Amino acid sequence: MTISEDPADLDRSDPEGEIGSRAEAYRNWGRWGEDDVLGTLNLITPEKRIQAAGLVREGRVISLAQAFDTNGPQKGWRRRTNPVHTMTDTGTDAERANQGFPHGMGGADDVISMPLQCSTQWDGLGHIFDHGLAWNGRRAGEVVTSEGDLVTGIEHAADALVSRGVLLDVGRFREPTSGELPDGYAITVADLEGCIAAQGPSSVVGAGDIVLVRTGQYGRARRDGWGDYAGGPAPGLSLTTAGWLRRTDIAAIATDTWGFEVRPNEFDVPAFQPLHQVVIPNIGLTIGEMWDLEELGEACAASGRYDMLLAAPPLPITGAVGSPINPVALL
Amino acid sequence: MTISEDPADLDRSDPEGEIGSRAEAYRNWGRWGEDDVLGTLNLITPEKRIQAAGLVREGRVISLAQAFDTNGPQKGWRRRTNPVHTMTDTGTDAERANQGFPHGMGGADDVISMPLQCSTQWDGLGHIFDHGLAWNGRRAGEVVTSEGDLVTGIEHAADALVSRGVLLDVGRFREPTSGELPDGYAITVADLEGCIAAQGPSSVVGAGDIVLVRTGQYGRARRDGWGDYAGGPAPGLSLTTAGWLRRTDIAAIATDTWGFEVRPNEFDVPAFQPLHQVVIPNIGLTIGEMWDLEELGEACAASGRYDMLLAAPPLPITGAVGSPINPVALL
Amino acid sequence: MTISEDPADLDRSDPEGEIGSRAEAYRNWGRWGEDDVLGTLNLITPEKRIQAAGLVREGRVISLAQAFDTNGPQKGWRRRTNPVHTMTDTGTDAERANQGFPHGMGGADDVISMPLQCSTQWDGLGHIFDHGLAWNGRRAGEVVTSEGDLVTGIEHAADALVSRGVLLDVGRFREPTSGELPDGYAITVADLEGCIAAQGPSSVVGAGDIVLVRTGQYGRARRDGWGDYAGGPAPGLSLTTAGWLRRTDIAAIATDTWGFEVRPNEFDVPAFQPLHQVVIPNIGLTIGEMWDLEELGEACAASGRYDMLLAAPPLPITGAVGSPINPVALL
Amino acid sequence: MTISEDPADLDRSDPEGEIGSRAEAYRNWGRWGEDDVLGTLNLITPEKRIQAAGLVREGRVISLAQAFDTNGPQKGWRRRTNPVHTMTDTGTDAERANQGFPHGMGGADDVISMPLQCSTQWDGLGHIFDHGLAWNGRRAGEVVTSEGDLVTGIEHAADALVSRGVLLDVGRFREPTSGELPDGYAITVADLEGCIAAQGPSSVVGAGDIVLVRTGQYGRARRDGWGDYAGGPAPGLSLTTAGWLRRTDIAAIATDTWGFEVRPNEFDVPAFQPLHQVVIPNIGLTIGEMWDLEELGEACAASGRYDMLLAAPPLPITGAVGSPINPVALL
Repeated sequence: MTISEDPADLDRSDPEGEIGSRAEAYRNWGRWGEDDVLGTLNLITPEKRIQAAGLVREGRVISLAQAFDTNGPQKGWRRRTNPVHTMTDTGTDAERANQGFPHGMGGADDVISMPLQCSTQWDGLGHIFDHGLAWNGRRAGEVVTSEGDLVTGIEHAADALVSRGVLLDVGRFREPTSGELPDGYAITVADLEGCIAAQGPSSVVGAGDIVLVRTGQYGRARRDGWGDYAGGPAPGLSLTTAGWLRRTDIAAIATDTWGFEVRPNEFDVPAFQPLHQVVIPNIGLTIGEMWDLEELGEACAASGRYDMLLAAPPLPITGAVGSPINPVALL
Repeated sequence: MTISEDPADLDRSDPEGEIGSRAEAYRNWGRWGEDDVLGTLNLITPEKRIQAAGLVREGRVISLAQAFDTNGPQKGWRRRTNPVHTMTDTGTDAERANQGFPHGMGGADDVISMPLQCSTQWDGLGHIFDHGLAWNGRRAGEVVTSEGDLVTGIEHAADALVSRGVLLDVGRFREPTSGELPDGYAITVADLEGCIAAQGPSSVVGAGDIVLVRTGQYGRARRDGWGDYAGGPAPGLSLTTAGWLRRTDIAAIATDTWGFEVRPNEFDVPAFQPLHQVVIPNIGLTIGEMWDLEELGEACAASGRYDMLLAAPPLPITGAVGSPINPVALL
Repeated sequence: MTISEDPADLDRSDPEGEIGSRAEAYRNWGRWGEDDVLGTLNLITPEKRIQAAGLVREGRVISLAQAFDTNGPQKGWRRRTNPVHTMTDTGTDAERANQGFPHGMGGADDVISMPLQCSTQWDGLGHIFDHGLAWNGRRAGEVVTSEGDLVTGIEHAADALVSRGVLLDVGRFREPTSGELPDGYAITVADLEGCIAAQGPSSVVGAGDIVLVRTGQYGRARRDGWGDYAGGPAPGLSLTTAGWLRRTDIAAIATDTWGFEVRPNEFDVPAFQPLHQVVIPNIGLTIGEMWDLEELGEACAASGRYDMLLAAPPLPITGAVGSPINPVALL
Repeated sequence: MTISEDPADLDRSDPEGEIGSRAEAYRNWGRWGEDDVLGTLNLITPEKRIQAAGLVREGRVISLAQAFDTNGPQKGWRRRTNPVHTMTDTGTDAERANQGFPHGMGGADDVISMPLQCSTQWDGLGHIFDHGLAWNGRRAGEVVTSEGDLVTGIEHAADALVSRGVLLDVGRFREPTSGELPDGYAITVADLEGCIAAQGPSSVVGAGDIVLVRTGQYGRARRDGWGDYAGGPAPGLSLTTAGWLRRTDIAAIATDTWGFEVRPNEFDVPAFQPLHQVVIPNIGLTIGEMWDLEELGEACAASGRYDMLLAAPPLPITGAVGSPINPVALL
């Protein structure tokens, strides 16, 4: 059976069916062995990294992270707050010399408390389950307990997330004037392929690449205010791109939105992040969200080159199902 | 006046004098303008990064981070605890289908609470003060208040910390058998220069490099137990290396120990981290601590090549005086 | 000089003057010795507590605490968030028997992260300063550093906050129909005295009492939504009540609003919580905020008795400048 | 079948059997209806509280809480750390006037992060499960998920925990010289009854009382250092007291130890807190741990009166399975 990649063909009354058929068709379970903990990150080869390093021509670094602070977009959904950063020692104390240090020494120290999914981040393989099953077909309750992800914790990807990055600036491609897709815009396979064709050879996507999809929503949110950036309507990938995500054999994908896929989701009945349900537990794809692709979008548009060396190492928090990150593009 | 770089010449009864003379001699205040927020990170040039990218030959990534979890070395000194990672959604919940999601969707989410200096990290420029003054001569109380570092917060370095990395494996150089310096061993300029000479041309250190000094203590701690890794005796740089750190114009330096410099500190009277007091507020040097240099040490020893592309981007936590990191070496 | 207790006499262009004259007139510094750490809590005598115990006739307990959870009123002002409660062990894990306990044992554990001022709470004596001075005339920087309140931390009041409580239901007194004062309503000495007279003898306020002022705003907020409960317009005490708070020699006072005093504050120029500035550092008065006085208001209105045994012990968090509490009224 | 209350009769090879027979024999499921969320707290009547208020003769308050700070006993077991208290505004900032407030106003604010079971606390009814079942026979996974205790959260007890308290100073009774039971000492029914007889009529325990058992271990820990106070050997109640805890119909019980029951537990095979497993999910008994009963022990020994008004209201943290508390005894 062929699964249509045209959103018009989706049965908008049947999320379970549309998810299920894709999950079954694109599933990568067992592809890297029964004990696999990396999913598509296995596709990043040494050769790919050597190729990526060869893309560095300007020696320019662009950080793709949003700020981590209390002014972020989170509003408390499922207890996701913005980061709270507090000081345990400060310069006012040091200047007043009441810290107890000798010889004029003073210091400042700090603490943070934050959800791992609060700002620019990777979703690990234990982040989403499909009918009680996690990546590679494991039972969810044997993978992620209150102690964390006992099997596929993000620490396993500590040395994985360096590869060739490719920016697909769908915002600029589809909306040349504003550079921003409207909220609710479902990015299709045709959009992705059209964007690659328009951007030229440096945008061709292949096995092991980390694909960055710029929608422009983040720039709009920073200009106009967060509004419902954290969970509200947004441009993003259509459920119908699941096959493309599988057959391109990309290693990971990231967007500049809260939730990577289009919102509202493409159903007329209650649905929630159906593409996540297909790609994380079934394809084993690592997903990045809330990346700041504004400066990178401008740089690539200016140079006409859309690929780069991308280093986005997660903090190896033992058992975490995600990680805050500061991804850097090296052009 | 010439300042001796022989530890035997230190006046062990006068930390304030020994610190003060070096602070004055090596101070970089004003070198990059009055508004500077980066210190020696300014020395990383595009050319340096292009050079670094050219060092990638194997396409191999090595993570230099320790694990972030409750089993870490912290014992509560100045409220520095180990990270506490908790789940807000789990696989056991998902499997039991009591999360409230439709179509068989399940999810796991998590939260972390941790000191920014608890594990592998960068010390930002606001971390240490000298007689009430911060980097570039600013008053400490105008830089770091309870709201955080208002001037030199780590977020300013979000796109800075990618450069050529050079491993100086002083542990292997001085202790060929064990590969580990004993606690209390003060690494001197002679050690650093000798190590470079022994390791060969790939170890030559210059402007803009990020120097990694392996003492071997971390490997010992993991083998024998943490003990007093967090603040107790340790090998590390002698105060007398301050001049070398200045004149080499390195961009940053990191070690595999809790505190970068030798402990106990080199004085017979109360002293605390004198080299920090010289290099952070005066030289403007960014310091990395608690890096895991074990695998990298082995790799470099095996290949005979000691330089690499190093990406160690901090989380851009607004106003932070440090950041947890997962530095990656790309060989 | 007599200080007017009529709000009409306030010079609305001069908060510093209006605060300053009251601070000077009502200051209690030195009254309980140079080393005092309790302020007006010293006024609670054993006799007062025996009297309070004698008020218990129904054997009924009413909790005066709001809920502590993420659905609270905080919006992030000065990093005050709502409490974040997470589980480290759960029943879904226990039921699945994957916790590692023997003989069918299962457990649930949890963690909380919260500002001490996020919900029902006491403001300790170190919470507010007047021109750099804390309670009893100490320099603020010698009292509260990044290590906490080194002198007047809330732990000193661990056994203090049990006394006779007196409810002044100004909401019902001034607005018999709705029982709710409008936002911006400044409660005056005349209101307080009138309320006492109307409520009758059980409301007479004297030395060592803990006075509870119900405005009705909390009930409105729960009915209509939080809105700007945390920091927006609210009914509350007028700055002109400072003298009454001093001469009645009450031990503590609490309201059902975010900030105890009327908001907007009673000035035409920038001002912020002027009554706090008078009463905490100068009078040494402990202030309670965000108490839920709805059920108590109904109970007292029904019985015609407005005094009770009140137990509101703070958590003895070492060095805290406030404490979350669950105050209980025993009728 | 009669269950022996002599520890010598315990089958030390069969924790599951010894727990199971007691669970079945003493189970209170259904006693207060199918929807009950309070367990034995239902036994505190208005009359009991009136009686308790009548016990107040000295007007003296004794706090029974340990300090909440980083110097506490926790060592990280199951991620239980000591509280971490940090400041978000300080007096050094205020004195320096860099907080942004007008008219000489300054403030200090703070935040806490802590396990709810880290210091003096109540175990709620959702804290322990028996073979996947929670209080009143509910399935554990339907009661406590990652969202917290959805049924028996501690918030339901917000107005419950005020009653007559009775101190049973078993430490002084059994060890008149030191006043301290040795670690590993199993308190039996004979000890409890003997202590009551020795202490006299004010110690008689009945329905609705809150019983405080002093072992003296806390005093020893404070004098000699924490050692393994948090989870190591300790005096405490024998599993064989389960029947006494049931038939006395006490409302709650608290001790001055980490875990209420004797440790090591009374079995020769792996066992963990068997008495918890009987009394929390089966009897519905609320348990207090890590109470400081030192000053109270001295006061009662001096006066010869062992009962008091006890107010120990939990913080109503929604869905919590426990709560930090500052219990106060009013004598």
